[in-house]
Amino acid sequence: MAKEITSRSENYSQWYNDIVIKAGLADHSAVRGCMVIKPYGYAIWEKIQRQLDDMFKATGHQNAYFPLFIPKSFFSKEASHVEGFAKECAIVTHYRLKNDPNGKGVIVDPDAKLEEELIVRPTSETIIWNTYRGWIQSYRDLPILINQWANVVRWEMRTRLFLRTAEFLWQEGHTAHATKEEALEETIKMVNVYAEFAQNWLGIPVIIGTKSESERFAGAVETYCIEALMQDGKALQAGTSHFLGQNFAKAFDVKFASKEGTLDYVWATSWGVSTRLMGALVMAHSDDNGLVLPPMLAPTQVVIIPIFRTDEELASITSKVNQIVAELKSKGISVQFDNRDNLKPGFKFAEYELKGYPVRIAIGPKDLEKGTVEVARRDNLTKEFVSQDGIANYVEQLLKDIQTNIFQRSLKFRELNTTKVDTYEEFKEKLDNPGGFILAHWDGTAETEEKIKEETKATIRCIPLDGEIEPGKCIITGKPSERRVIFARAY
Amino acid sequence: MAKEITSRSENYSQWYNDIVIKAGLADHSAVRGCMVIKPYGYAIWEKIQRQLDDMFKATGHQNAYFPLFIPKSFFSKEASHVEGFAKECAIVTHYRLKNDPNGKGVIVDPDAKLEEELIVRPTSETIIWNTYRGWIQSYRDLPILINQWANVVRWEMRTRLFLRTAEFLWQEGHTAHATKEEALEETIKMVNVYAEFAQNWLGIPVIIGTKSESERFAGAVETYCIEALMQDGKALQAGTSHFLGQNFAKAFDVKFASKEGTLDYVWATSWGVSTRLMGALVMAHSDDNGLVLPPMLAPTQVVIIPIFRTDEELASITSKVNQIVAELKSKGISVQFDNRDNLKPGFKFAEYELKGYPVRIAIGPKDLEKGTVEVARRDNLTKEFVSQDGIANYVEQLLKDIQTNIFQRSLKFRELNTTKVDTYEEFKEKLDNPGGFILAHWDGTAETEEKIKEETKATIRCIPLDGEIEPGKCIITGKPSERRVIFARAY
Repeated sequence: MAKEITSRSENYSQWYNDIVIKAGLADHSAVRGCMVIKPYGYAIWEKIQRQLDDMFKATGHQNAYFPLFIPKSFFSKEASHVEGFAKECAIVTHYRLKNDPNGKGVIVDPDAKLEEELIVRPTSETIIWNTYRGWIQSYRDLPILINQWANVVRWEMRTRLFLRTAEFLWQEGHTAHATKEEALEETIKMVNVYAEFAQNWLGIPVIIGTKSESERFAGAVETYCIEALMQDGKALQAGTSHFLGQNFAKAFDVKFASKEGTLDYVWATSWGVSTRLMGALVMAHSDDNGLVLPPMLAPTQVVIIPIFRTDEELASITSKVNQIVAELKSKGISVQFDNRDNLKPGFKFAEYELKGYPVRIAIGPKDLEKGTVEVARRDNLTKEFVSQDGIANYVEQLLKDIQTNIFQRSLKFRELNTTKVDTYEEFKEKLDNPGGFILAHWDGTAETEEKIKEETKATIRCIPLDGEIEPGKCIITGKPSERRVIFARAY
Repeated sequence: MAKEITSRSENYSQWYNDIVIKAGLADHSAVRGCMVIKPYGYAIWEKIQRQLDDMFKATGHQNAYFPLFIPKSFFSKEASHVEGFAKECAIVTHYRLKNDPNGKGVIVDPDAKLEEELIVRPTSETIIWNTYRGWIQSYRDLPILINQWANVVRWEMRTRLFLRTAEFLWQEGHTAHATKEEALEETIKMVNVYAEFAQNWLGIPVIIGTKSESERFAGAVETYCIEALMQDGKALQAGTSHFLGQNFAKAFDVKFASKEGTLDYVWATSWGVSTRLMGALVMAHSDDNGLVLPPMLAPTQVVIIPIFRTDEELASITSKVNQIVAELKSKGISVQFDNRDNLKPGFKFAEYELKGYPVRIAIGPKDLEKGTVEVARRDNLTKEFVSQDGIANYVEQLLKDIQTNIFQRSLKFRELNTTKVDTYEEFKEKLDNPGGFILAHWDGTAETEEKIKEETKATIRCIPLDGEIEPGKCIITGKPSERRVIFARAY
């Protein structure tokens, strides 16, 4: 089974697709650019959702739900916003089908044309700010701290499972504040929530920074992001948090009476992560045998496989396994006993390796005699014999070790693939080998950014928040620069 | 605050709308027929989701996600299905906007017309069965037991918050089976899950039955449903579970190799409940003071309101309240302490009554002296003084009592509003007064059903599963009938 996966060195793209499809995470659908998220993939997404939702609520947010459709006129109210999204949106123009009078099946009823076209939301700032106008009169109505879990549609031309699909699932936070300071604080708070989630749950180290103007969200004053590095040396933007200033409040005329009695525009933020995180998860940790999942997000953390020839052997193994299962469950560890008798252990081993179960326990007649089990970890593919006594404590600690190891391994990879360069020659050289993050001085202009992008396909991933102040000279123009920014080729 | 609610006797419809809007459950949106679900309403929906999801998983189902869009050609493959939904669907025809060359803002780009139109899913049988074709080869791939949480769109002409909206949120289960018996068993299992949820969580008694042919889901062989009675004597369909036979398997050519080596069409079910349940919840229990929520679904079960004049009084009350809050939380009871000092207790009382908090605790300086608190229940508006000692145990039991009482009260109401009739005269009389469920004999024909509907607006809600076999004569035609069916005017 695992042998059917293309290796990373052979074709990284194909390797990624093989894992997504063969591990049962997602499938292409009959609708252009839309995917089907299969049960195993969705189970991981549910864990991501649950944890993020808990973190949003712990930071004072509530969930709500706004319409799927946005009237075209709303969509156009914030100038840079519509410019950013107009070229890739699904548009509803009619509301009825009818039988073709010429007998050619079902057709769109021309009499059922909408007066105003509706855009399937690519993001919800416009419909939400139009709603907030009715909710906000005074400073007492602020802040509004709302999040929405929803599907959105962006008519992307080139799509890839999870990483870039026409429809995707996400959450979008939309908050309203009385002051600029408070909105900025919220923006930064949420990008930090994302970073914490990425590192502690996804096991992916990220760099927090701000986007250059050309990479900013359409309608934002400042975009904060978390950037991760994939195994092929390409960067992946894993989450963004936008300080929207008063742009949407002005576009939708949302004012509030301040404590001081003035009438001011409201300050806004929005922030989101999507099913793209699933793509990051696959690309960051998996290997040529299949998926590698951090235990915190694995739908099932432990699989137990019996090694037996006769029904009697299976019966005595089962009795011991039931005991182990109960011990593991009492510690909150999720576990599955695969006692299918029509498949060989080797087949099962490959299957669970492909699906990325963090821990595999095998147990046969000899183990029963010796009071041991064989424990294999998915992250580094090592195995050892462990006493059945205290197995639950052992596995509990092992899951923590695996979670830590996955993160540390990714961190080390990133460190090995982050290079400081001081000339454009060196920049191009390092970009090809080893790839990864390139730290370089930039003069702060869109022209220089564009030139580098055209010539090398590398973009500014972010201006890191914790980057040191280090005066230098732009690698292209030689103009002065205050600090290095991070370049990379990106997904 | 509560005084602004129209009374039920004055105008039941307006009363319903007042509660939905003033309790902060939902709002109309700028998009025709689409609603905004506000945080308080969404918090209830989240509790509904969480419980149903647990019940689905406990019965072996997994979640997955399928595309929002359905190609028009798929939609048309099952004849009665397309007939049922074609007249009310949102149709995507284009994928790009552009600037109007005449300077009139943003317009749909005529060059970006889709080759095949996409329907925004009104339900997902077609896209899912088209997908299942690729997943099912042999009996080993069966059963498939999948559920999806999603938004759907039906272009309803007359909409009402929660009860009937153009976009709504729901879950739709779609299962595939090797035999008819197994699919039928699944259909019935899930309608029973819905009934259990309605009774034990929503606190709404329901009648389980099958639909007459004309009320069946478009594409189903048999539709099972749960029917509830609202306080105005109208019925509300609260959930449906469909036995789809082989209709969709045939339309999408989904066959499997059986154990016996034959190639057979797969058997299907689908089942769903939606945000309509929120409407049922409001209509079933609330009163002229506002929302009444069953404790099992209340976002916050207990509110504590301090009665004080001075900061010192508030301080000593707060210290006692902190202790009570900790005790309640340790029992898993959700509680909120409203210590806002700019609002009077009476205002707060009205607000929490409007929002349906099941239990309100008031505590003032005299209570501190006497070691008591005042406990008010929302369901029957009674109050009593209770000792602070053991308050958590008291409240825990009280919440159970309220949950039971709400259900029993609804059950009693239904019993009082269910009438057996044997003539059409009596039928019409009882339908107007008292209204509710009318049990009558029906000859089983669509003509009779249609005649009754036209003349009285009453429809057959269901043929109850546990209805006794009781031979009789159709109230219209006098033809023989095996059992009574349930008529009502309905939402």
